[in-house]
Amino acid sequence: MQIAIPYVSGSGHTRVLARHVADGAASVAGAKAILVDVEALQPSDWDLLAGAGAIIFGCPTYMGSAAARFKDFMDETGGDLWTELRWRDKIAAGFTVATFPSGDKLSTLMQLSVFAAQHAMIWVGLDEIGAPVNKANKGINRDGSSLGLMATSSRDKTLMIDKDDAETARRFGARIARAALRWQAGA
Amino acid sequence: MQIAIPYVSGSGHTRVLARHVADGAASVAGAKAILVDVEALQPSDWDLLAGAGAIIFGCPTYMGSAAARFKDFMDETGGDLWTELRWRDKIAAGFTVATFPSGDKLSTLMQLSVFAAQHAMIWVGLDEIGAPVNKANKGINRDGSSLGLMATSSRDKTLMIDKDDAETARRFGARIARAALRWQAGA
Amino acid sequence: MQIAIPYVSGSGHTRVLARHVADGAASVAGAKAILVDVEALQPSDWDLLAGAGAIIFGCPTYMGSAAARFKDFMDETGGDLWTELRWRDKIAAGFTVATFPSGDKLSTLMQLSVFAAQHAMIWVGLDEIGAPVNKANKGINRDGSSLGLMATSSRDKTLMIDKDDAETARRFGARIARAALRWQAGA
Amino acid sequence: MQIAIPYVSGSGHTRVLARHVADGAASVAGAKAILVDVEALQPSDWDLLAGAGAIIFGCPTYMGSAAARFKDFMDETGGDLWTELRWRDKIAAGFTVATFPSGDKLSTLMQLSVFAAQHAMIWVGLDEIGAPVNKANKGINRDGSSLGLMATSSRDKTLMIDKDDAETARRFGARIARAALRWQAGA
Repeated sequence: MQIAIPYVSGSGHTRVLARHVADGAASVAGAKAILVDVEALQPSDWDLLAGAGAIIFGCPTYMGSAAARFKDFMDETGGDLWTELRWRDKIAAGFTVATFPSGDKLSTLMQLSVFAAQHAMIWVGLDEIGAPVNKANKGINRDGSSLGLMATSSRDKTLMIDKDDAETARRFGARIARAALRWQAGA
Repeated sequence: MQIAIPYVSGSGHTRVLARHVADGAASVAGAKAILVDVEALQPSDWDLLAGAGAIIFGCPTYMGSAAARFKDFMDETGGDLWTELRWRDKIAAGFTVATFPSGDKLSTLMQLSVFAAQHAMIWVGLDEIGAPVNKANKGINRDGSSLGLMATSSRDKTLMIDKDDAETARRFGARIARAALRWQAGA
Repeated sequence: MQIAIPYVSGSGHTRVLARHVADGAASVAGAKAILVDVEALQPSDWDLLAGAGAIIFGCPTYMGSAAARFKDFMDETGGDLWTELRWRDKIAAGFTVATFPSGDKLSTLMQLSVFAAQHAMIWVGLDEIGAPVNKANKGINRDGSSLGLMATSSRDKTLMIDKDDAETARRFGARIARAALRWQAGA
Repeated sequence: MQIAIPYVSGSGHTRVLARHVADGAASVAGAKAILVDVEALQPSDWDLLAGAGAIIFGCPTYMGSAAARFKDFMDETGGDLWTELRWRDKIAAGFTVATFPSGDKLSTLMQLSVFAAQHAMIWVGLDEIGAPVNKANKGINRDGSSLGLMATSSRDKTLMIDKDDAETARRFGARIARAALRWQAGA
C-alpha cells in the first residue's frame, strides 16, 4: 500500500511537515510513504499517484488559500483523470502551514477537501482533540484543526516545525495509512 | 449495516429528498436505511446513531447555511459524544436543498463536512459528473456538486424533488451504503 | 450612527468579547454601540437593527459553525427582511470565540459573511496583521484572522477574554464604526 | 474613480463575463472600468491597481477553486503590498464561471473574499435575488449567488455567456462602481 504525499514548500516548513507525515504513515505495517515535490513532478509520478491507495495533499497557505504552485498541480488533474474519475474512492487527506495558528489555514483545507470530492475521493481528517479538552494531548493539534493537519511555522528556523506539531503530523500520517489499509482490505 | 439519515425539513423538500437517499441506500444488499427526523428526536435515536455504520446528514440551506433546527441537533453532539470521539471512523455524508441551483448550498455542505471532521468521521461525497462533461449523465447532478448531494426545490409542489434530482439522490444513497459496507468489511 | 451588535453567548466569553467590540465602536465620535442578546430578542430590536448603520454579528463556534441559538436569529431574517433586501448596503462584520486558536472559527466567519451577502450587506473585516509579520502588533490578532474577529477563550475564567484579544476587539469595533460613518457620509 | 478588473480566462468565458462587468461599471457616471488580464500583467498594472478605488477579481473555477494562473497573481500580492496593507479600505468584489450552476463556484468566491480580507479590503457582493423569489428578476442571478457574481458557461460557443448572466454581470459591475463612488465620497 503506497501513500503518496504530493506537496510544495516555499521556505521549507511544508517540506519538513511532509516528512513528519510520511514518517507517521511509514510507521504503519504494510504502508509505504512516498514524498512527491510537485514543483519537480516527473511524468512517472502520475503513475505513482494512480497506483497509490491514499494521496495526502500538502502546501503552504498563501494569501488565504493553497499556494499557486500547488494549485498548478491541482489544475493539471482537470483532464481525463477527472472526467473519468480515475482517482475515485482513493483515500485523501490534506495538510497546510502558515505563520499564524488560524491564518486562514482552514480555507486551504476546505479547498483541498472540495478538490478531493471533485475526484470522488474519500476524505479523512484528524482524530486528535488537543488540550485543554483532552488533557492527555498537551501540545497535540494545538491550532485546533479537524478537517486536516495544520501547523504553525516554528520561530526556530533550524527546526521549521515544532516538536508538538511534528508529533501531530506523525499521528496524522499513521491515521491516514491505517484508513487506507482498512479501506483496501474491505474492497 | 445501518445507514442513519438524520434530517430536518421545512416545507417538505428535504424530507422527500431524504427518502430518495434512503431508497438508494436500502437498495444495496446488506444495508438498511433509517430516517430520523431530528425535530422529533427520541432518546433511543442516539443509540441508533451510535450503532450506525454511516450517518448521512440532511437539511435545507437557509440564509446560506444549515437550518437552525438542524444546527440544534449538531450542537447537541458537542458533549461526551464529541470529546470521546464516539463517532470516530463512521462514514459520513451530507445533502441539502434550496430554491436556487447554487444558492450557497456548498456553504452548508462545507459546514457539514467540517462538523463530521470534528467527530473524526470519514467523509464520502458524490461520484457523479453530470452532462455536458459526462454526456451519459443527462440531468444527474445538474447543480454540479461534489462534496455532497444538492437538490433544487421543484416548482412542482406535489413532486417537491424533480426526477433527475431524485435519481441522483438514490445513486448517492447507494454510494454511501457501499462505502459503509466496504469500510466495515475492512475493519 | 448606531452600531448594533446582535450576539449570543454560551459560557460568557462571547458576551465579554462583544462588550470589547462595543467599547471600540463607541470610542469613535458619532457612533453609538448597542448590544443585543438575541436569546432575549424583543420585537423592538428589529426596529433597532433596521435603523442601524452597521450590524456586527457575534457568536461562539460550536461544532465548527455558528451556535444554533444564533442561527435561529439568522433564520428569522429569512422572510420579507431578506426578500425585500431591507438590510441592503448596511455595513456588516462578524466575530467568534472558541477553545482553540483555529478551532474552525473561520468556518463561522465564512458563514456570517455569506449570510451578510445574502442580505446585500457590505462586509468589513480586520485590518490588523499580528506579530511576527507586524512586530509592532505583538499579541494583536494572535490567531491570525482576516475575515472577522477571532478570540480564543481565556484559561482565566474571571477574565474570559485575554487582554490582547480584548484590545484586538476594541480596534475591530472602532474600525467598523469608522467604516459605517464613512459609508453614511458618502450616501 | 477607476474600477480595476484583474482577471484570467481559460477558454474565453471569463473574459466575456469580465467585459460585461466592465460595461456595467463604466455605465455609472464618474466611474471608469479597466480590464487587466493578469496573464499579461505589466509592471505598470501594479500602479493602476494601487490607484483604483475598487478591484473586482475574476477567474474561472477549476477543480473547485480559483484557476492556478489567477492564484499566481494573488500570491504575487503577498509581499510589502500585503504586510503594509496598501490595498486597505479599497472596495473589492469577485466573479467566477464554471460549467455547472453550483460547480463549487462558491468555493472560489469564498477564496477571493478571504483574500480581499487579508488585504483589509471592503467586500461587496450581489444585490439581486432571482426568480422565483423575486418574480421581476426572471433569469437574473439564476445560479442564486450572493457573495459575488457567478455565471454558467453558455452552451453557445459564440456567445460564451448567456444574455441573462450578461445582464446580471452589468448590474453587478454597476453596483460595485456605485459602492466605490459612495465610499470615496465619504472619505
